[in-house]
Amino acid sequence: MKPPALAITTGEPAGVGPELCAKLASRPWPARLVLIGDRGLLAERARMTGTAISLRHYLPGDAAQVGVLDVLHVPLAHSCQPGQLSVANAGYVLKTLDLAIDGCLSGEFAAMVTAPVQKSVINDAGIVFSGHTEYLAERTGTPRVVMMLAGEYGMGDAHPWMRVALATTHLPLKSVSAVLTAEALTRTIRILHADLRDKFGLPLPRILVAGLNPHAGEAGHMGREEIEVIEPVLAELRREGMDLIGPLPADTLFTPRQLARGDAVLAMYHDQGLPVLKFATFGGGINVTLGLPIIRTSVDHGTALDLAGTGRADGGSLEAAIHCALGMSATRANPNLDSSLS
Amino acid sequence: MKPPALAITTGEPAGVGPELCAKLASRPWPARLVLIGDRGLLAERARMTGTAISLRHYLPGDAAQVGVLDVLHVPLAHSCQPGQLSVANAGYVLKTLDLAIDGCLSGEFAAMVTAPVQKSVINDAGIVFSGHTEYLAERTGTPRVVMMLAGEYGMGDAHPWMRVALATTHLPLKSVSAVLTAEALTRTIRILHADLRDKFGLPLPRILVAGLNPHAGEAGHMGREEIEVIEPVLAELRREGMDLIGPLPADTLFTPRQLARGDAVLAMYHDQGLPVLKFATFGGGINVTLGLPIIRTSVDHGTALDLAGTGRADGGSLEAAIHCALGMSATRANPNLDSSLS
Repeated sequence: MKPPALAITTGEPAGVGPELCAKLASRPWPARLVLIGDRGLLAERARMTGTAISLRHYLPGDAAQVGVLDVLHVPLAHSCQPGQLSVANAGYVLKTLDLAIDGCLSGEFAAMVTAPVQKSVINDAGIVFSGHTEYLAERTGTPRVVMMLAGEYGMGDAHPWMRVALATTHLPLKSVSAVLTAEALTRTIRILHADLRDKFGLPLPRILVAGLNPHAGEAGHMGREEIEVIEPVLAELRREGMDLIGPLPADTLFTPRQLARGDAVLAMYHDQGLPVLKFATFGGGINVTLGLPIIRTSVDHGTALDLAGTGRADGGSLEAAIHCALGMSATRANPNLDSSLS
Repeated sequence: MKPPALAITTGEPAGVGPELCAKLASRPWPARLVLIGDRGLLAERARMTGTAISLRHYLPGDAAQVGVLDVLHVPLAHSCQPGQLSVANAGYVLKTLDLAIDGCLSGEFAAMVTAPVQKSVINDAGIVFSGHTEYLAERTGTPRVVMMLAGEYGMGDAHPWMRVALATTHLPLKSVSAVLTAEALTRTIRILHADLRDKFGLPLPRILVAGLNPHAGEAGHMGREEIEVIEPVLAELRREGMDLIGPLPADTLFTPRQLARGDAVLAMYHDQGLPVLKFATFGGGINVTLGLPIIRTSVDHGTALDLAGTGRADGGSLEAAIHCALGMSATRANPNLDSSLS
């Protein structure tokens, strides 16, 4: 069987993305990795960071070759030094995303994996851009997506996965309660359930749902959203056959004993779920966008401009994102396969 | 030197508190442990859980004796089976707290450590009680206290401490922003700073302060409390010489690299700080009330009614709370001592 081709967008050229992508050449992959970005930039960053690398121009029909990275070349608009942002390259960054999205939609790529971009530079170039997730949703005509972070966490010899999806994402804390409507929560849980089933191979995913308030509101003493919004939504979706546990107090949900009861956690907002996920996964976490017609995973870190060019940036998150994308695409192609451990 | 006497309130009689207290007899302590509760109850739970125990009536002048637990006897109002709550014993529970508080205020006890109580039972008895912390503040005439959770977390062979204090505690999420005034935040940081210095032996404590909003507001794009409240407060307190780092995004603050930069974290609200603390400390976390004229530590778990009487409850949190209280009282008695690792 021909190995799948994965599109990897190399991200902000001044950041650590290009060198982390170049490092991928140092180990074999059960897939053809197609780096989308400036070929000269990749070669230069590989040289700066002492990475031996063999690049070839990407041609769709080529066979995969061990130790060789395919490059779908997109020329930089402006030459780029590590750490030096340039608005002139904002269009370049978006072009790499567009090529990956188009290739995923056409079936040329099995999935896309994104290295970090610098939002502020794209905005400074006069382009409205609030993040990969929103851009992908818009470009694929998806009305609602769900952000999920995931990663292995160590517990002695066992390395279970922690998956944390968010019911709300990038908004002021004081707006969270108003945005968390029954309709929005229902749609989020439907997407999470469907993607855990179809892309992670969990026939009946068990989802641990956090409350919104401390102690999940303690029977209404500390907030009523659990009673008025969350519990009715869970009851309705359970009637459809979903396996939903909660609403649970967030501070006892993230204990190994509780986590072992479920396949994924749904946190109600950003800082309820992500601090513990990022602590637990120790730099190896990844970001998955659920609800898209394509498969997209990402590193869970930023451009780390201060580390760019030094070779000291940790590629663990990028490698984990590639493994996860491969598992998800294999599962989607063969729904009987359990990719939950890939 | 005479070892210090520590008051340990044995908590809700139907919960795991009495048996965890009885278990303390199984190892030597560099202090005299004075259990406050019903003597017969302690003996009975020790028997049920197979704990060998030697109890004697507490008399202030007695010397400490290895393997013997002193009991300051408070009779139950109503006999009590594990897991069976009774409002008749609400007054009993409060009496144990009052004796501990009075003994700490008089100097008879060096500190108090509390086993868990069942708030709902006390409220059902018609007594307004919103928790140990609030009760202690009121009984000692303290206008403002700060809740801090702490515990060791494993990182290979190293076991650094994580300390997480909260700027706001038990209130609905949507009220957090309004309650977080500059005045309230200033008072909280002053208490945290003073107690880290005076009770934890850190001459110039370094405090990592979280933002309120995701990504600490990202320069105002996701909320303005960082700009309007938190940053001005930090700037003002830095001018007084405090070492404050932040406001930091909560999801990158709780990484080992960032945590290593500070002595304590100040989270803005309950579920921003406690999920990661409880995950990281793995059942061995403790709760410390800062700002009181006395030293009080506590377990960070509840009454676990379903485990009561089985002997399966984990005493790690109670033991850690005792060690922490001992370290804090030693530091307060001798300000040159660093208790940060005790």
